[in-house]
Amino acid sequence: MIRIAIIGGGNVAIHLAKAFSKTKDISLVQMYARNSQQITHLKHLVTITNNLDLLATADVYIIAVSDDAIAKVSEKIDKKNSLIVHTSGSASLNTLKNNGRKGVFYPLQSFSKDKEVNFDEIPFCLETENKEDFKTLEKLAKSIGKKIYPINSKQRKSLHAAAVFVNNFTNHMYKIGADICEEYQVPFEVLHPLIKETAQKITTLSPKESQTGPAKRNDQETILNHLTLLTKEQQKIYQLITKSIQNNGEKL
Amino acid sequence: MIRIAIIGGGNVAIHLAKAFSKTKDISLVQMYARNSQQITHLKHLVTITNNLDLLATADVYIIAVSDDAIAKVSEKIDKKNSLIVHTSGSASLNTLKNNGRKGVFYPLQSFSKDKEVNFDEIPFCLETENKEDFKTLEKLAKSIGKKIYPINSKQRKSLHAAAVFVNNFTNHMYKIGADICEEYQVPFEVLHPLIKETAQKITTLSPKESQTGPAKRNDQETILNHLTLLTKEQQKIYQLITKSIQNNGEKL
Repeated sequence: MIRIAIIGGGNVAIHLAKAFSKTKDISLVQMYARNSQQITHLKHLVTITNNLDLLATADVYIIAVSDDAIAKVSEKIDKKNSLIVHTSGSASLNTLKNNGRKGVFYPLQSFSKDKEVNFDEIPFCLETENKEDFKTLEKLAKSIGKKIYPINSKQRKSLHAAAVFVNNFTNHMYKIGADICEEYQVPFEVLHPLIKETAQKITTLSPKESQTGPAKRNDQETILNHLTLLTKEQQKIYQLITKSIQNNGEKL
Repeated sequence: MIRIAIIGGGNVAIHLAKAFSKTKDISLVQMYARNSQQITHLKHLVTITNNLDLLATADVYIIAVSDDAIAKVSEKIDKKNSLIVHTSGSASLNTLKNNGRKGVFYPLQSFSKDKEVNFDEIPFCLETENKEDFKTLEKLAKSIGKKIYPINSKQRKSLHAAAVFVNNFTNHMYKIGADICEEYQVPFEVLHPLIKETAQKITTLSPKESQTGPAKRNDQETILNHLTLLTKEQQKIYQLITKSIQNNGEKL
C-alpha cells in the first residue's frame, strides 16, 4: 500500500484525488489546499487541511499547484523521508526545494473543471532521481492509468512547447475558422467532422504525410482567393503558415 | 429512382461511386474517367467509359474533377435536360459551363485514397438554382449521408478558407509538434491524446472558451522558455499566434 497526499486545489489536484480515491492499492491519506473551500466537496473522499504544518505522513506528496508556487510550497513540506513530486509540464525537477527525494508526475492533458477525465487515455510522464522512486511513481500511474513514459526535465520542457502547438495553437486555428464562419453566416458545426478527422488521421499517418490543401499543392489561385476573404490579422497568419508548409516539408 | 453519373477518377469520385452503388433509390448508371485505368477496380459496381461523347442518360451528372478542369469538362457534357453539379469547395456555381441547370454537391471532408469514408459523418453543402433541383440533391445526399446544409457560393468559399485553417493549418501545428518531439527524442504519440481531446472539446465549448495555455495567461516566463527551444521558423509562428491569441479574444 502506497500512502499519498495531494497538495493543491486546482483541476489537476481534484481530478487526481478523485481517481486515486477509487483505487485499491493506493491510500489517499490527505489533501491540502491553501483555500480549502476549493475542495470541501471532496471531504467524503479524503481528509482535508489548509495548513502545511499539519500534513499527515505519506510515502509520496504530489504537488499540483501553479508553476510559480512549486518552489515555495515544496520548501515548506518538511518530510525528508518521503518522495515529493510536482505535476508540471514546464517546471524542471529541480524546481522542487524540499530536503529529500524529488520527482515529476506529469499527466499530459488539458484538464477542465467540469469535464470527467479518463486517465486511461492520458500519458503519464515520469521522472525521478533513482530507479526505486521511478517504480513507485509507475505504480501510482498504473493504479489510475495505462500509458507511462520516462521523460526527463529537458524532454518534458520540449514536450510542453510541442503541446502548445498541438493544443493552444490548434485551438486558435479553430477560433479563426469559427470567426470566418460567423462573418459569412455559416454554422461552425459544419466543420466539426473535418476537425475530428484531421485529429484522427495523424494517429495512423505522420502529420507530414497527412498534409493536403492549397499550400501543399502551391495552388496560388485558391490562396489568393482565400486571402481576399480574410481580415489583416488572419491574412498574416495564413501567409506565414502557408509559407511554412511550402518549405518543402523540411524540418522547421 | 434518380439516375446519376459520376465524372472523375479521383478520391471523391471513387468514394461517392462506392457509396451510391449501395443505395436502393439511386441508380448509378455510369462513371467517366479520362484515364479509365484509375477506376477499373469499380467495374463490378458501375459501367465505365473514358469518352464524354458516350455518356449515358442520367438525371444528375456529378463532376468530381480538379477545380481547374470543371469548366472544360462541364462544357463538354451536352445534356440540356439534366442537372449538372460539381463537388468543389472553392469553385462557384458559375464555374460550370453547361447549357442547363447547375448545382453544387460538396461533401466537406478530406478524402484519402485508402481510408474508408463514413458519409453519415460528412456534411453535404448543397447549392442549386431552383428549389426542385435542391430537393433532388437533398435526396442524393440523404441516400448516403445525414447532414445537409444549404450553402451558397460565397458561403462555400468562406467555408473552404475556414477549412484550410482547421485542417491544413492545424495539421501543420501537429507537424511542428512532431518536429519538436523528434528533435528532443520524445515519442510523438505522447501527444495523441491531447490532440484528440483538443478536437473533441470544441464540439461542446466554443474555441474561444476552450483556450488555455501560456499565451492566454500571458505567462511570459514560459513563453520565453519555449522560444529558446525552437528553430527560427518555429519561433516566428509561435510569436505570431501567441500575439493573436492575446488580442483580447477579439474577432480577428
